[in-house]
Amino acid sequence: MFNFRVISNLLGILLIITGGLMSICISFSWYYKSDDLFAILLSSCITASVGFALWKTKGKNTDNQIRKRDGYVVVTMGWLFMSFFGMLPYLLSGTIPSVTDAFFETMSGFTTTGASILNDIESIPKGILFWRSMTQWIGGMGIIVMTIAILPILGIGGMELFQAEAPGPTSDKIHPRITETAKRLWMIYVSLTGVLALLLLLGGMTFFDSINHALTTMATGGFSTKQASILHWDSPYIHYVITLFMIIAGTNYTLLYYGLKRKFEHFLKSEEFVTYLSVIAVLTVTITIGIFISSDNSFERSFREAFFQVASIITTTGFVTTDYSLWPSFLTIMVLLMMFIGGSAGSTSGGIKVIRHYVMAKNCFLEFKRLLHPRAVVPVKIAEKIVSPSIITNVLVFILFYLLIFMASAILLSSTGLTIDSAIGATATTLGNVGPGLGSVGPMHNFSEITCMGKWFLSFLMLIGRLEIFTVLVLFTPYFWRNN
Amino acid sequence: MFNFRVISNLLGILLIITGGLMSICISFSWYYKSDDLFAILLSSCITASVGFALWKTKGKNTDNQIRKRDGYVVVTMGWLFMSFFGMLPYLLSGTIPSVTDAFFETMSGFTTTGASILNDIESIPKGILFWRSMTQWIGGMGIIVMTIAILPILGIGGMELFQAEAPGPTSDKIHPRITETAKRLWMIYVSLTGVLALLLLLGGMTFFDSINHALTTMATGGFSTKQASILHWDSPYIHYVITLFMIIAGTNYTLLYYGLKRKFEHFLKSEEFVTYLSVIAVLTVTITIGIFISSDNSFERSFREAFFQVASIITTTGFVTTDYSLWPSFLTIMVLLMMFIGGSAGSTSGGIKVIRHYVMAKNCFLEFKRLLHPRAVVPVKIAEKIVSPSIITNVLVFILFYLLIFMASAILLSSTGLTIDSAIGATATTLGNVGPGLGSVGPMHNFSEITCMGKWFLSFLMLIGRLEIFTVLVLFTPYFWRNN
Repeated sequence: MFNFRVISNLLGILLIITGGLMSICISFSWYYKSDDLFAILLSSCITASVGFALWKTKGKNTDNQIRKRDGYVVVTMGWLFMSFFGMLPYLLSGTIPSVTDAFFETMSGFTTTGASILNDIESIPKGILFWRSMTQWIGGMGIIVMTIAILPILGIGGMELFQAEAPGPTSDKIHPRITETAKRLWMIYVSLTGVLALLLLLGGMTFFDSINHALTTMATGGFSTKQASILHWDSPYIHYVITLFMIIAGTNYTLLYYGLKRKFEHFLKSEEFVTYLSVIAVLTVTITIGIFISSDNSFERSFREAFFQVASIITTTGFVTTDYSLWPSFLTIMVLLMMFIGGSAGSTSGGIKVIRHYVMAKNCFLEFKRLLHPRAVVPVKIAEKIVSPSIITNVLVFILFYLLIFMASAILLSSTGLTIDSAIGATATTLGNVGPGLGSVGPMHNFSEITCMGKWFLSFLMLIGRLEIFTVLVLFTPYFWRNN
Repeated sequence: MFNFRVISNLLGILLIITGGLMSICISFSWYYKSDDLFAILLSSCITASVGFALWKTKGKNTDNQIRKRDGYVVVTMGWLFMSFFGMLPYLLSGTIPSVTDAFFETMSGFTTTGASILNDIESIPKGILFWRSMTQWIGGMGIIVMTIAILPILGIGGMELFQAEAPGPTSDKIHPRITETAKRLWMIYVSLTGVLALLLLLGGMTFFDSINHALTTMATGGFSTKQASILHWDSPYIHYVITLFMIIAGTNYTLLYYGLKRKFEHFLKSEEFVTYLSVIAVLTVTITIGIFISSDNSFERSFREAFFQVASIITTTGFVTTDYSLWPSFLTIMVLLMMFIGGSAGSTSGGIKVIRHYVMAKNCFLEFKRLLHPRAVVPVKIAEKIVSPSIITNVLVFILFYLLIFMASAILLSSTGLTIDSAIGATATTLGNVGPGLGSVGPMHNFSEITCMGKWFLSFLMLIGRLEIFTVLVLFTPYFWRNN
């Protein structure tokens, strides 16, 4: 039924890459003479060895054909395997002694969530800290390749919609040229990370901090090397640079590719990109006014805080430069709702994504037309092309699933003893891969106080949020396991 | 464009009926010698006179044809007119001196919500108190006639779905026999109200209290003559009787009609009814266990409280026998989520309704099948009949609209100074026509502390919740006002 050999080989390759990237962290351990060198080296060897064994596995099947079902298994298992091996450096170095905590932190890294259980980040050895940022960067790259190249083949994801809108390196053409596409995306991702690191270095960050924040910004991850996140730096330059790059990281990478080729007209033609920027603009203006009226901040500071937090939450990065839980309650509720928006399809951001909201809004509005003209056919159009009814149902079902999982999870989590706002915040932020929540998991707190059960549950939410729900949940349906 | 004459005449008839029923309340003023007799008499005369004038209005149109657009206007305007004239007794008697408060209380009555701004219900004159219960009973009957007879013609409502499932006095046949159907429903409604009043009288309630509670129970309204709601009576008999009748009131009236004809097999064949009872059973068991573990209540008392509150919230009645906001927080969140369920289509209950959830759940589950078999046609079936894709889209859009209105309203309301949980509770309970909310509008509090703006806004939410969203919102779309 499954092609176990191919699945095993693919998982092997993933682990070899993970182990390889892990070994890079050793250079920081060596440079800063931190005592985590041996732990990371050992973790790297274990991960790569297991990967090598899986890669060399031979099974009954001799064909290299990978079918839809195998694809789902590889994607979900891949993320799980990476998280299980990725937590080894934390455990072996003793930085995070508990398996639950280490798994939570690693899953939060690979899913680019950014929720942390660490209470004193500055005391963590530099090699481990770099590995923590690296997990987000790996996860971010993985998600771009996955959403642009793999998920459309499996028939999932808002990217399918975007492809209809922007034919080019993606669309159907991507399948035969998948290696070429992956290379291009990788190049953009690496270059942007490099540029950002340089800009942060020029802004006065240390070499180590600038690299770490470049990695986690481009991944829309949100892990920081400081307990106070970006609030640690009281520099408008750093705040604005990171805001700008969060917005770039939340943009569809196909568009960024066009940008690189100076085909800027594609940006204006993309309904998703225009909506994405408009949403950020409207929310920034609203919240700027809200902060300016309710606090004694200057207008520039109100604007900067609003802009930063809006970009951070919409793109599901999760950095903070202020404690938004102290804002007037309607602004705090807006932050909560922003966690449900998400960035663009085909970016590193999580959440529902702008394109799905856009399709839903168009369809909801047209429903009134259908009501008044029951015999007319009223289709939804994007970029003057009709969106097929099956995609519309898929979008509506996705959003409903998202909201239902959110609500059911908030109940389950509150039964572990969390207050209502904390439970709602923790669920929304992990499912949306954002990072900070509300209440006891607010921007100035962390997830260390959550119960053991709660942490495993939230790790699961991060995973299904990251893999766009269907990829994981389909494994739990009878249809998946029924032969043919 | 509109047939103003017919619209005016229909609104006139509505007001004449309202004025007539208002005059019944005078008998209680007279019997209890309360000083509200003249105020109610005057209100009744004004309402009936304006109604008479509207009824006799002549316009340019001479045909009696009522088109779809006229239907929407009549339904929405009807509810608004009734509420504006229905608040006269409160204002003229001085019981509720503020127009905002009086309108809120009346809209809460006619929409069978049950949210109140009264702080000392026991001190209200008996005639006014009876009018308050009467508004719910009128609204309840109105909603049954509307959802079974009128909304399907306009192309709205879960009832369309149910018709496919249970052909009989409703379905397409209803249109030519609309008077006959209305008579039958009216008869069932009146009889059940009578039976309940008798049962409550036998249980030790006063004559006045038993009639009032019979009216507001059958309407799934929830107005009580006591500040402490049903908690005022420490009688298991009264609690169980009201629980039972709330469940009956939340059942589709077409089914009740079959029940009257002893065709009980229709109950088991109805997927909505079976789901409705199952949901109540599962929630009751869960909450019973929750209460039993977390309090020192006896098992019977835990069960009774759980059963009563579940039936009350699911059917959107809103009576209480305990302060559920003091339950462990995961039980309180469950109560909040229950507000989104709603009773059966074609009953007096509000909310999203079980049939919509049922269709949504079936469709969401089948989406996985569609994902694995992209070329197969996977339709949703109810009672072995295929539900058309346009109805499914309508159901999904309805639920999304409902959730979006809820979220946007919660933000808006919290900007009036309410805490997050109070704003969420107030929005959920008014949109779902339930009654009590959470926090400062919880079961042991009321809506008197909400700001003026907030009360008008919540009144609007009650109306769009009651009229199943589309009926009201369609008036705000360009499609409605565009000629042809």
